[in-house]
Amino acid sequence: MPFTTHTESALQTVQEWLREDLERVEARMREIPLTFEPLRTAVDHLLRAGGKRIRPLLVLLTGRLYQPADEAMVSLAAAVEMLHTATLVHDDLIDGSLLRRGIPTLNAIWTPAATVLTGDYLFAYAASLAARTENVRVMAIFARTLMAICEGELQQQFGDRVAMRSRQDYMRRIYAKTAAMFELATEAAAVLAQASESEVEALRRYGVALGMAFQIMDDVLDFTGDVQILGKPIGNDLRQGLATLPVLLYLEEHPEDPLIPRILGGSSGEDDGLIEEAVRRIRNSEAITRSIAEAEAFIGQGRAHLQGLPEGPAWQALWALGDHVLRRNR
Amino acid sequence: MPFTTHTESALQTVQEWLREDLERVEARMREIPLTFEPLRTAVDHLLRAGGKRIRPLLVLLTGRLYQPADEAMVSLAAAVEMLHTATLVHDDLIDGSLLRRGIPTLNAIWTPAATVLTGDYLFAYAASLAARTENVRVMAIFARTLMAICEGELQQQFGDRVAMRSRQDYMRRIYAKTAAMFELATEAAAVLAQASESEVEALRRYGVALGMAFQIMDDVLDFTGDVQILGKPIGNDLRQGLATLPVLLYLEEHPEDPLIPRILGGSSGEDDGLIEEAVRRIRNSEAITRSIAEAEAFIGQGRAHLQGLPEGPAWQALWALGDHVLRRNR
Repeated sequence: MPFTTHTESALQTVQEWLREDLERVEARMREIPLTFEPLRTAVDHLLRAGGKRIRPLLVLLTGRLYQPADEAMVSLAAAVEMLHTATLVHDDLIDGSLLRRGIPTLNAIWTPAATVLTGDYLFAYAASLAARTENVRVMAIFARTLMAICEGELQQQFGDRVAMRSRQDYMRRIYAKTAAMFELATEAAAVLAQASESEVEALRRYGVALGMAFQIMDDVLDFTGDVQILGKPIGNDLRQGLATLPVLLYLEEHPEDPLIPRILGGSSGEDDGLIEEAVRRIRNSEAITRSIAEAEAFIGQGRAHLQGLPEGPAWQALWALGDHVLRRNR
Repeated sequence: MPFTTHTESALQTVQEWLREDLERVEARMREIPLTFEPLRTAVDHLLRAGGKRIRPLLVLLTGRLYQPADEAMVSLAAAVEMLHTATLVHDDLIDGSLLRRGIPTLNAIWTPAATVLTGDYLFAYAASLAARTENVRVMAIFARTLMAICEGELQQQFGDRVAMRSRQDYMRRIYAKTAAMFELATEAAAVLAQASESEVEALRRYGVALGMAFQIMDDVLDFTGDVQILGKPIGNDLRQGLATLPVLLYLEEHPEDPLIPRILGGSSGEDDGLIEEAVRRIRNSEAITRSIAEAEAFIGQGRAHLQGLPEGPAWQALWALGDHVLRRNR
């Protein structure tokens, strides 16, 4: 059982196992037919910035429940990561983020106009990679996912800030922000691998659950993470007035504390001292362990959906990814 | 030959003939599955702003060379217009345009972030409509077209301003800006109608030629148009430093005139008096009739590609669209 190790290396073990597949995915992502040199440079910059490639890994693992990766599965894995990259380009522009994974974002080094167009280009390239699966249903899932992501992002940007302090709203937001893309990876891969409808549905739900846990842990790391390892500042969401799960649970525990509502309401301005104090209070509260418990519950749900699926190393790896999600530090 | 009338009404006659098909396309465009109210309002605003729907008309006419419009063809026509609408949303943001067709643009009434995300949503919705054709090749053409459009726009935004004063560069730019979408309409419709490969190629080339003529006439109207009818200011491209065909031909004729290079070089600032004078000089020069002659040549090429295609009212309408393109006033 090489993948059930309870350390950060759960992911590394899986990455090692699928190294060849992942290299094919990287190569496919770089088959981008660009003639305009500045755009090529920008895309190279984005692809080099890398990331853990957990979304293509989900595609490959789901596919490997059924068969080794063929060209269509490699294209799908590349398409999912390219769609993810495109959404990051526009997100960073919208949020005014200057660093991602410790590397300057595109909008930090280029104009807003160029950033918008580069994101659009990457959406188109993602669609083109998805078309290489030659599977109409996969393409429809792609389109539906991007619609859910955009609508969720618009709601986050323009929704009622008070209504956004409900747990229901938080869950809806992290579904759109993260879980929808995980869902795309596992559902589309299952469709492409010609899994039965009940297996497609189980894998779709596994993807959603893993994605929900992933985002909750991301939101926890915004309070507990190491700025050097994260490659971005701590308390980022709070600074932007976003009430993530640790914030919501802290507010439940400490309804009398005026500091957090003041920051969320925007009346603290950009006072870093106040935000640091708020981060300290949340980090030292029960809100963190309770948030992690919710992430663990999602991992439990996700693993339940794996029951009855074809066993073997891919199945074990999908199970073990839950440990990675719960224990990652960036 | 009801469609060969040499007036603006060539388009109206075709629109009248295909009224029912066009209503199905409008309905399909409005089947947008939105739950977030502000986004629904924004999309309604964009769809009400309308336009002449020449791109869906091209899809429908190409399809009707072979068969009446089925659900897939209606979805394709809606997808093409939705993709066009999405590109306009981002273009207006990038150009800072506040009016289109006399109606405030989305970026004039909303934030840049909302405008970026709404454009993204419409790209996704266009892809979702394209997926409803259930034709993988159609979807690949869609993705390829959006890539060409984005790359062309990036080149226009960031290319070498001096190199952009060549006729070759101009033709490349208007292909990406306009002709690529016309090409998408006719090529994808021919594929969907199961035309033979040689007919797909002929219709693809017809679409390119019509689109090239369309954009040249658009660039002519930027000098000769009526601001009330156009719904946007005259000399807009020149103000933005864009050397369109009338400008290039004027520069060929009057290499000694320092005014135009001064405006293109950006050293005139935003001096409206200078731009008005430049517009007057170009409008009264041979550059206008020579530009129209180039548009006519493209229409001639396009019509040559129609030779040998199935005859009937759709064929006559495709022929007559050339007259509309050459004689339109907005």
